Amino acid sequence: MKVAIIGGTGYGAIELIRFLYNHPYTEIEAIISHSQSGERLDSVYPHVTDLVIEPLETLNIDQLAERVELVFFATPPGISKKLAPGFLAKRIKCIDLSGDFRLKSSQVYQDWYQGSAAEQQYLDLAVYGLSEIYTEEVKNAELIANPGCYPTASLLGLIPALNHGMVDPQSIIIDAKSGVSGAGRSTSLNTHYPEMNENLKAYKLGQHKHIPEIEQALQIEAGKELKVAFSTHLVPMTRGIMSTIYVNAIEEISTKEVIEAYTAFYDGHPFVRVRREGELPATREVYGSNFCDLGFYSDQRTGKLTIVSVIDNLVKGASGQAVQNMNLLNGWEPSTGLNYLPIYP
Amino acid sequence: MKVAIIGGTGYGAIELIRFLYNHPYTEIEAIISHSQSGERLDSVYPHVTDLVIEPLETLNIDQLAERVELVFFATPPGISKKLAPGFLAKRIKCIDLSGDFRLKSSQVYQDWYQGSAAEQQYLDLAVYGLSEIYTEEVKNAELIANPGCYPTASLLGLIPALNHGMVDPQSIIIDAKSGVSGAGRSTSLNTHYPEMNENLKAYKLGQHKHIPEIEQALQIEAGKELKVAFSTHLVPMTRGIMSTIYVNAIEEISTKEVIEAYTAFYDGHPFVRVRREGELPATREVYGSNFCDLGFYSDQRTGKLTIVSVIDNLVKGASGQAVQNMNLLNGWEPSTGLNYLPIYP
Amino acid sequence: MKVAIIGGTGYGAIELIRFLYNHPYTEIEAIISHSQSGERLDSVYPHVTDLVIEPLETLNIDQLAERVELVFFATPPGISKKLAPGFLAKRIKCIDLSGDFRLKSSQVYQDWYQGSAAEQQYLDLAVYGLSEIYTEEVKNAELIANPGCYPTASLLGLIPALNHGMVDPQSIIIDAKSGVSGAGRSTSLNTHYPEMNENLKAYKLGQHKHIPEIEQALQIEAGKELKVAFSTHLVPMTRGIMSTIYVNAIEEISTKEVIEAYTAFYDGHPFVRVRREGELPATREVYGSNFCDLGFYSDQRTGKLTIVSVIDNLVKGASGQAVQNMNLLNGWEPSTGLNYLPIYP
Amino acid sequence: MKVAIIGGTGYGAIELIRFLYNHPYTEIEAIISHSQSGERLDSVYPHVTDLVIEPLETLNIDQLAERVELVFFATPPGISKKLAPGFLAKRIKCIDLSGDFRLKSSQVYQDWYQGSAAEQQYLDLAVYGLSEIYTEEVKNAELIANPGCYPTASLLGLIPALNHGMVDPQSIIIDAKSGVSGAGRSTSLNTHYPEMNENLKAYKLGQHKHIPEIEQALQIEAGKELKVAFSTHLVPMTRGIMSTIYVNAIEEISTKEVIEAYTAFYDGHPFVRVRREGELPATREVYGSNFCDLGFYSDQRTGKLTIVSVIDNLVKGASGQAVQNMNLLNGWEPSTGLNYLPIYP
Repeated sequence: MKVAIIGGTGYGAIELIRFLYNHPYTEIEAIISHSQSGERLDSVYPHVTDLVIEPLETLNIDQLAERVELVFFATPPGISKKLAPGFLAKRIKCIDLSGDFRLKSSQVYQDWYQGSAAEQQYLDLAVYGLSEIYTEEVKNAELIANPGCYPTASLLGLIPALNHGMVDPQSIIIDAKSGVSGAGRSTSLNTHYPEMNENLKAYKLGQHKHIPEIEQALQIEAGKELKVAFSTHLVPMTRGIMSTIYVNAIEEISTKEVIEAYTAFYDGHPFVRVRREGELPATREVYGSNFCDLGFYSDQRTGKLTIVSVIDNLVKGASGQAVQNMNLLNGWEPSTGLNYLPIYP
Repeated sequence: MKVAIIGGTGYGAIELIRFLYNHPYTEIEAIISHSQSGERLDSVYPHVTDLVIEPLETLNIDQLAERVELVFFATPPGISKKLAPGFLAKRIKCIDLSGDFRLKSSQVYQDWYQGSAAEQQYLDLAVYGLSEIYTEEVKNAELIANPGCYPTASLLGLIPALNHGMVDPQSIIIDAKSGVSGAGRSTSLNTHYPEMNENLKAYKLGQHKHIPEIEQALQIEAGKELKVAFSTHLVPMTRGIMSTIYVNAIEEISTKEVIEAYTAFYDGHPFVRVRREGELPATREVYGSNFCDLGFYSDQRTGKLTIVSVIDNLVKGASGQAVQNMNLLNGWEPSTGLNYLPIYP
Repeated sequence: MKVAIIGGTGYGAIELIRFLYNHPYTEIEAIISHSQSGERLDSVYPHVTDLVIEPLETLNIDQLAERVELVFFATPPGISKKLAPGFLAKRIKCIDLSGDFRLKSSQVYQDWYQGSAAEQQYLDLAVYGLSEIYTEEVKNAELIANPGCYPTASLLGLIPALNHGMVDPQSIIIDAKSGVSGAGRSTSLNTHYPEMNENLKAYKLGQHKHIPEIEQALQIEAGKELKVAFSTHLVPMTRGIMSTIYVNAIEEISTKEVIEAYTAFYDGHPFVRVRREGELPATREVYGSNFCDLGFYSDQRTGKLTIVSVIDNLVKGASGQAVQNMNLLNGWEPSTGLNYLPIYP
Repeated sequence: MKVAIIGGTGYGAIELIRFLYNHPYTEIEAIISHSQSGERLDSVYPHVTDLVIEPLETLNIDQLAERVELVFFATPPGISKKLAPGFLAKRIKCIDLSGDFRLKSSQVYQDWYQGSAAEQQYLDLAVYGLSEIYTEEVKNAELIANPGCYPTASLLGLIPALNHGMVDPQSIIIDAKSGVSGAGRSTSLNTHYPEMNENLKAYKLGQHKHIPEIEQALQIEAGKELKVAFSTHLVPMTRGIMSTIYVNAIEEISTKEVIEAYTAFYDGHPFVRVRREGELPATREVYGSNFCDLGFYSDQRTGKLTIVSVIDNLVKGASGQAVQNMNLLNGWEPSTGLNYLPIYP
C-alpha cells in the first residue's frame, strides 16, 4: 500500500518515516513539505543520508490522490482541517496526527484552540484513534483523529478504572511530565539547550489543549460530565511521557486487585503492559517503542489510587499509534511494523 | 565561630563546605569522616584542590568539643541520634541534616524508618528547622533537626494556604520530582548514568520517609490530623526539587488573591520568592542558591489550587538551610553567607 | 538458526537481544548468565517485560552445543578465552565481543591487559571482525574477535587514508569521545549520575587497551610499525562514540578529493556513510543504528587532514557489528536484521 | 567603584552580574540593553527576581560616562569597536568580552571575522587580558580585550610548555570541546534541546575565529610563526570547556617533570591549578568558578605530551576573567569577588 506523509519535516513525520521504512506492507510514495519542497530529506535530517533520498514535494491533492491510498497528516494545528476533506472526497483514508479532528464539539475546540473548528460533518466522521479502546471503530474509519501524546498516556491509565467503576470520576488529578521533543522542532527560548538542560519546568497548568480531549473520552466511560485537574511539566530529556494519576478509590481495593483488573482489561492488547506489583515503569523502558506501561499503588492510608503511565511521546503518543491505526484500518495484525524491543539503555 | 562537620564526604557536607568557605563569621575547624579519615578532602573531591587541604579526621567527641562551638551532622540515618547527645552534654550546639530528630513521635519514626528512634528527650529537645516558619524557635535551639528536601519544598508551598484556611487540609496531593543528587553519593544501579540519563522514574509512591515529616508539620497548621498523598520521581538532572501540589480551595479564590496572601505571609523572608501571576518557577531559577520560589494557579473550572514550589535540594533542601539556621541561632542576619544569585544558565 | 548469548545481562547482550529479536533467520535459544541464572531477563531489564520471558540459564557447554549453532560472548575480559575452545571443539561458531581474541601477539595482550592471553592457536584462529575491511575473512571464520568500540570508529576512519598512502602513518593522533554506556552496567563512582552529568572527563590518556588493537590493524595497512597517540573522554550521554582523527597529509589534498577516495573505498558497504563536503557527522545521527558516518576537513593552512568518525558504541561498536559478522558468516545479506533508520531525535 | 554593563541580556552579562553582585568594591550602576530597554532584568531572567530590579537602560555614552568609572562590553561582535572609543575619550576604562580588540592585525581580523576591524590605534591600545600571562600589562591598561573561552583554556595549557622550550611549536593540535552555553542565548536549530541532548557534534574544524587569537599569543611565546590545528565540538552540557592538547616533546620528559615546570610557572596564580600526576581534570571540577585546571600525560611510546585544560567557559572563559582583569586594573587582590569553591556536584 502506498502512503503519503504531509508535513514531512517535523518530529512526528520523521518518526513515522522510521516505522514505515521497515513496514512490510507499505511504501512511502511521497513526503510533502510546504517549507522545504525540492530539498532532499537528508539535507534536513542528515541521519537518513543514503536511506531516504527522494525530494520533498509540494502538495497537489488531485495528483497525490492518484498515487496513494492513505495520507498521514503530521502538520501543525489548523492545516489538516483544510486539507483532509479534499482527500476524503476522493476516498483516500486520512490519519491526522494533529488536534484538528479530535474534539466532537466545535465550541469546545474554539474555547481551547482559539481558532475555528473543522466542519461539523468531519468532526462527526472522525474516529478517535486510541487503538486499544476504539479498536473496532478504527477498523472501519475513513478519517482517524490520532490522539495527543498526553491523552494517550492518561487515558490508557484511567479508562479501565472508570470502566470498572473503581474510582470517583470527579476526583481525577493528572500530573503529566514530558520530554522536550513534545514541543516539536521549532526553536524557542524555552527549548534552547542551556535553558532546558538541568532544569524542570511546569507550564500551562490547567490550560493545556489536551484537557478537553481527555475529558471528552473520560466522560464517555464515566457516563457523566467531569473535569480533570491536569498539569504539564517539561523534563530535561528528549523522549518520554509519564502521567502520574491520582484518583479516589470508591471502596478499598488492593494494588493486586487493581493489577488483575487492568491485566484482564488489556488482554489481547500487547502494546499495553501492566507491570507487576511493586514495579513502577520508567520512561526509558518504553523508549523508541509503541508500548504503554502501567504501574499502580493503592494507598490504604489515603484511600487514593495512584496510576503511573509511561509512553514514548513520539511513538505511542504519535507516530507509532498512527501506524497501529493504519494496521487496524487495513485488517493487518496491529503490531505489524511495530514489533520491536524498546531501546535500552 | 569554629564549627565541625561530621560525615564529611557526602554531598550534604561538600555543599556545606562550599557555603562555610565564604561565610564571614565561621571557620571550619574539622571535617570528620569515618570512612576516609587521614585522607585529604581533595583526594575525595578534586574540585577543592588547593582550597581545602586539611586532612579528614576521625571523631573524638571530647577533643572536638574543646575546639568547636557548633557541629553539623551530614551523616546517614541513625548516626546523629547516637552522637549528638555527647555534644549536647557539653553544650555544643548541633544541627542535624539527617532525619534522626525530625519526628516528635518515636512510634511514627519506627513505622517509617524501620529502626529505633532517638531517645524521647532529644526528640522533644529538637527544633524543626524550617527557617521561615519556626524562626523564633530556631533562634533559641540547642539541637536543630534540619528539614528534609521534599518537606522543605512542600511545606513552604502549603503552610500559608493552610494557615489562611484557604484550602481543605484533607485534600492534599503532592507530586514531587527530584534531581538525582538527592539520592546521595553512594552508587547504585538506579543512579548509574546510563540507567538514569534520558529517563524519568517514579519511586516509593506513598512510602517515602518524608511523608510523616510533612504530615507532622501540616497537622500543626491545620489543627487536626491529616494524611497527604505523596509521590516521588527521579528526574535526569543533578540538582533541583519541584513539588507540584494540588489542594481543593474552600471557596472560590483567584490566583491573584493567593499570590497576595503568600506575599504577605513571607514578607521579611527574602529566601522565599512569590512569583508573579502567570509565572511558574523552574528549578534552574534557584540553582545553587537558598531560594524557594513559589508559583500558583487557581483553577476556577475544577476548584483546585495548584502550587508549584522549587528549591535546590542540596541548598535550601539541606546545607543552605542549615547555614540559615546557624545564622538564626547566632543572632546573625539570616542571609549571612547565603546572599548569592542563583547560577544561570 | 539457533544461537546462544553468554553473559546475558550486560549492555552488549541486551543490545544483541534487541537485534536478534527481529532477525529473520535466527532464534535466541538460550541466554546464559552466571550471576542471575534462574531469573527472568525482565526482572533484570524490565523493558523486555512480556517479550523475552525465558529464564536465564547456567552454562553447560555440552548441552548447549547440542541446541545451538553459534554462540555470542558478551562477557567481561578473560571469560571467552576459557570457554570458546570448548565450543570450537564441537564445531560451534563463536563471536566474541570481548577483547580476548583481538590481539595476535600474546605478549602485547599481556602488556596491555595485565593478564595471560588465550592460547596462541586461538589467537591465530580468530578473525578480527571489522566487517567492512575483513569481509572475506569473516565469511570463513570459526572464531570471530568482534572489534572494540573505539577501534571500530577509529579504523573505519583511518584505513582508507593509509591504504591510499594519503597520510603519514607516524603522525596519527586520535582524540576519542564516548557516551557512558561504553563503561558497562557495573556501577562506579565515575559513572554515578551526579558525578557524570553536566561533566566531561578525560581518562586513560595513552593507556587504553584499545591502543594495541588499533595499532595492530593500522600496521597491516601501513606495512610498517607505527604508534598512535590515543586519548579517551567520557561525554555526558548514554550512547555514541566520536573519534576526531588528526593526520599529516603526505601531499596537498582537498577535502573533496578525500571524500571521493573514501566513497570509492566504501562502495558496496552500506553501513559506512561518507558525508558530503561541509557536513560533519554527529553521534545522534547514527543513534541505535549500525552506521559509521565519516566527515572530513583537509586544512591547507596546516597540512593536516581531520577525520570525524561516529558510531553508536553499542551497535556498530559492539552488538550490531556482531550481527553483521554473523550474517557474513552465514552468507546472508550483511544488513539482514540491521536495516533500520537511526532514531532521531 | 561604579560600573556599567553593555549588552545586558546575554549569558556573558548575566554571569558578570552574578559576580559583581557580591563584589566588595564595585556597584552595578547601569545595565544597558538595546533590545530590551525599559524592561526589568527579572522579566528576562526570572532567577534574579527580587534581587536585581532596576530597569534595563538604553545607551547614552555622555550620561553614562558621568555615572561610571568602568564599562564592560558583553556585546555581539562588531559593537564594542564602535562604542568603546567614545568611552575611552572620556577616560572611562573598558573591558571588552567580545572579539573586537583581540587581534593586533586588522588584516587577520578581516580574514577570520568577515568584517572590518576596529581602528588600528585601538587595536594597538588594547591589552590582551589573559590575566595570568599579561598581569603587568593589564594593571596599566585602558582598554582590555578579554580573551575568548577556547583561547583561555588552550593558552593557559600551552604557554608554559612553549615558554620552557619543552615542545615543538609547529606540532600543536588542540581538540577542544565546549558546553552549549558557549553558543550564547540566541536560539538555533543546532542548540534546540532535542537536537543537542544525547548528541556530540564537531563543528567549524580549522575555521573557528579563535584560531588567529590562539596563534597570535603562541607566536609571541615561540618567537616565530606557527599554525595550530584546532577543532571544536559541542558537548551535551551547559557549561565547561576542555582543550585536549597534543604536542611533540623536544626531548624525553616525564609527566612529573612537566608538572613541576607548570607548578613553578603558575606559582602565585591561584586560579590555575596544576593537578597531581595521574589526575586528569574534569569540567565539573571548575563549574561556576574562575579556575583553570591542568592535567598532563607525557607518553614515552609516542614522544607526545598531552595537556588537558578545563575551565568554565562563562567564568574563566568570559565573565570571571573580566572581573579578575578589573581587579588587576584597580590594584585589588586578583581573586576579589571570585574566591569561591566550584559547585559540585
